[in-house]
Amino acid sequence: MILPFSFRYLLILFCSSVIASFSLGQNNLPAKPRARDLGVPFDGTPGPLNAITDVSGVTVGHTTLNFGEGKLQVGKGPVRTGVTAVLPRGKDSMSNPVFAGWWSLNGNGEMTGTTWVEESGFLEGPVMITNTHSVGVVRDAVIQWRVTHGQPDPTGYWWSLPVVAETWDGWLNDINGFHVKPEHALHAIDTASFGPVPEGNVGGGTGMVCNGFKGGIGTASRKLDAKDGGYTIGILVQCNYGTKDNLRIAGIPVGREISAEVPYAGTSFVNDDHGSIIVVVATDAPLVAHQLKRLARRVSLGLGRNGSISGNGSGDIFIAFSTANSGAAAADHVVDLKMFPNDKLGPVFAATVQATEEAIINAMIAAETMTGIENHKVVALPHDKLREMLKKYNRLN
Amino acid sequence: MILPFSFRYLLILFCSSVIASFSLGQNNLPAKPRARDLGVPFDGTPGPLNAITDVSGVTVGHTTLNFGEGKLQVGKGPVRTGVTAVLPRGKDSMSNPVFAGWWSLNGNGEMTGTTWVEESGFLEGPVMITNTHSVGVVRDAVIQWRVTHGQPDPTGYWWSLPVVAETWDGWLNDINGFHVKPEHALHAIDTASFGPVPEGNVGGGTGMVCNGFKGGIGTASRKLDAKDGGYTIGILVQCNYGTKDNLRIAGIPVGREISAEVPYAGTSFVNDDHGSIIVVVATDAPLVAHQLKRLARRVSLGLGRNGSISGNGSGDIFIAFSTANSGAAAADHVVDLKMFPNDKLGPVFAATVQATEEAIINAMIAAETMTGIENHKVVALPHDKLREMLKKYNRLN
Amino acid sequence: MILPFSFRYLLILFCSSVIASFSLGQNNLPAKPRARDLGVPFDGTPGPLNAITDVSGVTVGHTTLNFGEGKLQVGKGPVRTGVTAVLPRGKDSMSNPVFAGWWSLNGNGEMTGTTWVEESGFLEGPVMITNTHSVGVVRDAVIQWRVTHGQPDPTGYWWSLPVVAETWDGWLNDINGFHVKPEHALHAIDTASFGPVPEGNVGGGTGMVCNGFKGGIGTASRKLDAKDGGYTIGILVQCNYGTKDNLRIAGIPVGREISAEVPYAGTSFVNDDHGSIIVVVATDAPLVAHQLKRLARRVSLGLGRNGSISGNGSGDIFIAFSTANSGAAAADHVVDLKMFPNDKLGPVFAATVQATEEAIINAMIAAETMTGIENHKVVALPHDKLREMLKKYNRLN
Amino acid sequence: MILPFSFRYLLILFCSSVIASFSLGQNNLPAKPRARDLGVPFDGTPGPLNAITDVSGVTVGHTTLNFGEGKLQVGKGPVRTGVTAVLPRGKDSMSNPVFAGWWSLNGNGEMTGTTWVEESGFLEGPVMITNTHSVGVVRDAVIQWRVTHGQPDPTGYWWSLPVVAETWDGWLNDINGFHVKPEHALHAIDTASFGPVPEGNVGGGTGMVCNGFKGGIGTASRKLDAKDGGYTIGILVQCNYGTKDNLRIAGIPVGREISAEVPYAGTSFVNDDHGSIIVVVATDAPLVAHQLKRLARRVSLGLGRNGSISGNGSGDIFIAFSTANSGAAAADHVVDLKMFPNDKLGPVFAATVQATEEAIINAMIAAETMTGIENHKVVALPHDKLREMLKKYNRLN
Repeated sequence: MILPFSFRYLLILFCSSVIASFSLGQNNLPAKPRARDLGVPFDGTPGPLNAITDVSGVTVGHTTLNFGEGKLQVGKGPVRTGVTAVLPRGKDSMSNPVFAGWWSLNGNGEMTGTTWVEESGFLEGPVMITNTHSVGVVRDAVIQWRVTHGQPDPTGYWWSLPVVAETWDGWLNDINGFHVKPEHALHAIDTASFGPVPEGNVGGGTGMVCNGFKGGIGTASRKLDAKDGGYTIGILVQCNYGTKDNLRIAGIPVGREISAEVPYAGTSFVNDDHGSIIVVVATDAPLVAHQLKRLARRVSLGLGRNGSISGNGSGDIFIAFSTANSGAAAADHVVDLKMFPNDKLGPVFAATVQATEEAIINAMIAAETMTGIENHKVVALPHDKLREMLKKYNRLN
Repeated sequence: MILPFSFRYLLILFCSSVIASFSLGQNNLPAKPRARDLGVPFDGTPGPLNAITDVSGVTVGHTTLNFGEGKLQVGKGPVRTGVTAVLPRGKDSMSNPVFAGWWSLNGNGEMTGTTWVEESGFLEGPVMITNTHSVGVVRDAVIQWRVTHGQPDPTGYWWSLPVVAETWDGWLNDINGFHVKPEHALHAIDTASFGPVPEGNVGGGTGMVCNGFKGGIGTASRKLDAKDGGYTIGILVQCNYGTKDNLRIAGIPVGREISAEVPYAGTSFVNDDHGSIIVVVATDAPLVAHQLKRLARRVSLGLGRNGSISGNGSGDIFIAFSTANSGAAAADHVVDLKMFPNDKLGPVFAATVQATEEAIINAMIAAETMTGIENHKVVALPHDKLREMLKKYNRLN
Repeated sequence: MILPFSFRYLLILFCSSVIASFSLGQNNLPAKPRARDLGVPFDGTPGPLNAITDVSGVTVGHTTLNFGEGKLQVGKGPVRTGVTAVLPRGKDSMSNPVFAGWWSLNGNGEMTGTTWVEESGFLEGPVMITNTHSVGVVRDAVIQWRVTHGQPDPTGYWWSLPVVAETWDGWLNDINGFHVKPEHALHAIDTASFGPVPEGNVGGGTGMVCNGFKGGIGTASRKLDAKDGGYTIGILVQCNYGTKDNLRIAGIPVGREISAEVPYAGTSFVNDDHGSIIVVVATDAPLVAHQLKRLARRVSLGLGRNGSISGNGSGDIFIAFSTANSGAAAADHVVDLKMFPNDKLGPVFAATVQATEEAIINAMIAAETMTGIENHKVVALPHDKLREMLKKYNRLN
Repeated sequence: MILPFSFRYLLILFCSSVIASFSLGQNNLPAKPRARDLGVPFDGTPGPLNAITDVSGVTVGHTTLNFGEGKLQVGKGPVRTGVTAVLPRGKDSMSNPVFAGWWSLNGNGEMTGTTWVEESGFLEGPVMITNTHSVGVVRDAVIQWRVTHGQPDPTGYWWSLPVVAETWDGWLNDINGFHVKPEHALHAIDTASFGPVPEGNVGGGTGMVCNGFKGGIGTASRKLDAKDGGYTIGILVQCNYGTKDNLRIAGIPVGREISAEVPYAGTSFVNDDHGSIIVVVATDAPLVAHQLKRLARRVSLGLGRNGSISGNGSGDIFIAFSTANSGAAAADHVVDLKMFPNDKLGPVFAATVQATEEAIINAMIAAETMTGIENHKVVALPHDKLREMLKKYNRLN
């Protein structure tokens, strides 16, 4: 949204007064335990950060909007939402597309830009994740970012088809108040950084619910053995799917045995998997487009491990990209590529499944109990109870 | 975009002062000749209006933004763009979804909402068409429309995944000025009407270029024989694709023989099919989801007749819906459906191909020469020259 | 393959002398324990037989070829293979197609006929499953069956596109000896019956390997609560996929803790998931084509529960059909259908996931240790060790 | 089908006595006019042979079965069928897979092996084309060819998923007599050669019908300008689709104006497009898998030019491969690839459309009037009448 300058200034002033808690996601990362710290067993070897940012070049930024209390007043709040940006090549993501593939396990959701990802084999720019009713504003803001930060074609005759996905936070957030503004999308892009990734109630994941408990953003990674190429596979999820009854952690049906009030009381959602999960898969293995689609499909197996049945209301949409083959999208000459052999993909697939399984549990472990609109309260997965369950089933590490 | 009321009022005031030519598309329809009036031969029998609105229940609305002259000043204009809305069941389109299927011949474009169309088999709400960089604002505006006009679920816990498509008008329009506002989307929905459909430089088609000449919105229909079911198939296109060299009309390569200055001079697009075409197929034949996807695929054969090669830069994306089976999307009980037999689909397919072929030519015949940003001029297909060509090839009706 | 009669008689005589153990799969069903009998816990409520044949109308037939010992002599054996037939409507399967959808999690496999299933929304005839190198002979034999048993069109001008799938049994079977003959396919069709389904080393599953142990045919079912429609979902698998390391049963990584010699010693397959799994989903819920595709996709979540990573070499291909809407494929008139609402699909999806999870374990529990070509030995999953593991992890029912 | 040797000898003797006209397709190529020789205008510049074999390395072989006259006796004839083999890298096609993509415009047909083409991005071995009811025998015969001619893995533990497609010749051929035998498939492979490709009533195309006239095999090619890379695009079709009424040649609706008795008299097919067309696209441009799928989709635009509506009964299935990137399917190491830029694909797409358009007309021009079962007669497109039509419409070159 481009407005005349003076006008835009007024708009920002106005917004600033309201958005008290417009937070910078990256700093002051609390020393919170993650799933493995609690003794949850997982397969495979994570990278140093156990995060999508273990894949060299990938940066992540969050804008978290969390303000207002009490009764819903559409347009005023309470607000529990945000935007998360994953940049495949950091600041170069706009100018140097990555090979990518996407896939939908259940399409009750939106990921814009996928028709071109499928056709071209490339992801041009970041993957943005927000709430369901703010996909549009975030999409156009990515284009605005391009307009102001060096356009892809100096002639000015170019177009852009940004990738923006969503899950629905309407149980905690004034989603129909449209509180996400272009500024919030730009902020997530501009502040995207290397290093540890904040998890839980941050960015697009702020107001999310997962498997009957508080959900949000989670991440994990796997580092392959040298004999398998030594590559890294990183996962970032915005998780909002599932029911408490179906939740399995490390194969144990913990959801059924931990007593807790489930969310969505009094709605048709209460016994149903109506949520959603967006999963971003990053790797530095030199996979080309059709191989990355295969990676995206493996995400469903990680969901399966955690008990998902991918309900009708769930938007389970996944995108995978490779940071290898820099320059592959050159417009005007035949390019040289590297391609990983299909026959060696087993460990890459395994890593994708394993890191998906862990990233979801990481999101749930990091998320904290939240109260939102109409005083709806969604409780965090209790860490102590989880450890009890794992111990009961001899699965505590 | 929901703003506090007083603020929104200011915004509208501001916009009103600028948007001098914010036009109501429906009235004062000029008595312009259409392709058949000029003697272009087509197969099959059109409905009474030879328009998508021949399919009972379908309404179409346009918002046309056409103001400013001369040199491009990003954010100020000149502006040559708009929004077109196709409502499958008129005012009931939000509450009574239609079976639908979609397909992409070449995916260098955006049509939001398609993942859910594919998964659910339904289109919930209108199909909106605008310019490439305004898809987001139009998308969120459709949700805003729902918020203000009777929400789908009275409890307030619902979400929406609008279908919004685009083609690129950046040769004539200040596309990076983001001139399409929520109001313009709402206006297209609110003014959608039965009856004749304005064609050419209107709505989302205002600034479009097609086959080397001025493009835009076009429509056509076919009425099947009683023995084939007597159904109607209607097509609406926003056409912006193709090159002059490839253009065939009634099978005749007229593009090559009509001398005219081609658009995109001095860009890499000048010899390339980088445009796009969005096609909406409507029918009252009782087709279910997977059959409608088949219909969407037939659109490519109509494009083939007119010479398209579906270039890399083209977003050739099609959606088909059926107005039969009202109530099929009921949430809570097994529904009774009618389904048309696969074995009888031949005439439905033929009608889709024929009406696509004609709707594109109708768009080009209706469009008028336009001058836009940087004084770029795109000439209309000259009617007299076209008739000359058809006569030369003994194809003038 | 149609041969002159006298000739064919000779052929049969010849084959009979060789195929000593051409067995009739259906009778003398041994009272073998199934997974739940051993105390493996599963979610949901099975139908009376806990088999795909709980879906009314579905019949299953097996032809098992198991003869010869010792060193491989291509064309002579040893032979460990067969054919399994699933008939959606029993004897009426050819004349009364069912709505169907299919999906491939990893396409290193064959399922013929799927292009037409996808296009038409119907499955016409049985689903046949055999070994990889015998798909062709079985496919043409199904057509031959039609030629001799009432052709679909009495005029004689018809064609058929049978659905035949496969997994690879070349570790135990002389697969390049092409031992499956038309007779074997016809026998599986002709002997398909209601009632309990033989599992393990039978039919197409005879020589299969699964998760490091002996695999084969398995089945399970779920019966929905009356409030969810009371429908039945049945699963039949021919399972040949996975590695011992990845195997999870009831969430417990039992594969790693049961010491057993793994198959494929000395090949590149030994540490890799190169196998395959074909899954047939049957239901009497009135799902139409695009909904059945959704069901097919859920199979992957059941695989996920059991630890699959769907390796590069795996042909994980699934087909789902509904026995409701008899007569829906009528060629010459608009038909009346029932359609189950999308919003109620949750329990149907859950049942599909649960029954897939159980059918695979049933296949492994039923399969018995087998020695095949080159004295390759594949051991059965030891029942006692499995119970020990489940007990250790407090998961024994 | 592997039989004991003495037995197989008997079988061959038996067959030989029947198959009098088992012809070698390649030699004695008659000097028949092709479409351009008759003055039909086409776009673009063909390669030296105007055939798929202009793509270096591609070989084509035909086995033609044409014997018997008069009344149909199922199993005895008359026989009007055959097998065509396209080998992407000639004799090396089995050991050196090519990048490939496929697509179905209308899936009432079979192309086996496509699930693995889609998943792996490679075509391993030849593309075989035969009649609908002989796909199985040809498929298994390709595996048999591998067993006898150097297996892909010397250990013997390998599998194969051949690509075999079909169209239906049951109006002229005793299709339910299953006259195609493994020998015929092997012969087509073994005799595949460089150079001119026989067209019309040969190979798999022997008994085909196209656009109301005799159809069969056709081919064409395009050679790109040096500035566009200088690559070659070759097309081979087995055409059996369409109706006389819809036929357009060079844009002219010649079908309607040439009076001729249409085939399928007395069946439901007489006014319907129930046929099929298989199209093979070959190129030496370095396209990778997802780009080749895009090429396959362009075939539909060539069909559109010739008037196709892709009727319900039509199996319009296309496969595209690139002979560049030899060695890309190496199993055990990262490979170096070349990739053509998406942005330069326009001329490649145009060439695909143009050569498809021409190959179909070449098939019809080459095909000769044939009488088959039940004395059904299908007339060839009369060359003189075609020239008359083109002249009438000022389109004769």
